[in-house]
Amino acid sequence: MYKAVVIVKRRPTILDPEGKAVEQGARLLGFNNVSGTRIGKYIEFYVNSDDVEAVKKEIEEYAGKLLSNPIMEDFEYSFEKVEND
Amino acid sequence: MYKAVVIVKRRPTILDPEGKAVEQGARLLGFNNVSGTRIGKYIEFYVNSDDVEAVKKEIEEYAGKLLSNPIMEDFEYSFEKVEND
Repeated sequence: MYKAVVIVKRRPTILDPEGKAVEQGARLLGFNNVSGTRIGKYIEFYVNSDDVEAVKKEIEEYAGKLLSNPIMEDFEYSFEKVEND
Repeated sequence: MYKAVVIVKRRPTILDPEGKAVEQGARLLGFNNVSGTRIGKYIEFYVNSDDVEAVKKEIEEYAGKLLSNPIMEDFEYSFEKVEND
């Protein structure tokens, strides 16, 4: 069994309205040193397999088809072996 | 200037409906090895200061007050010095 972490970010050229909104809130609260806030997703899950190549393939397909939008987002991932519970 | 990364996750005991929904979609597409999907936030921003203690304080307040919900989420952060553009 492997534990995977996938990080999904909007491409740098694509506007991030959520980040802009949070930053506007920050200004109102007096955070004047914060800039360039961009909000992406941090996803954790388990893959129930012990074949590293199969695990990689499963993570890439899951991330590419369900966790990210291939038109405007990129993803990166890492994984590590964990003991079955 | 520092670049900060904040990761916000729901506490482990708190239900993650978004993760459950994505995983249900995964089952329909034939991903049968994936389990325990939990979706959090990955946030990047810049802090315009060169005083490490001030940077830490700013990140902690920004993350605690605006980026996370202290009732049901935890955050962790890291930061590194970057050159001003």
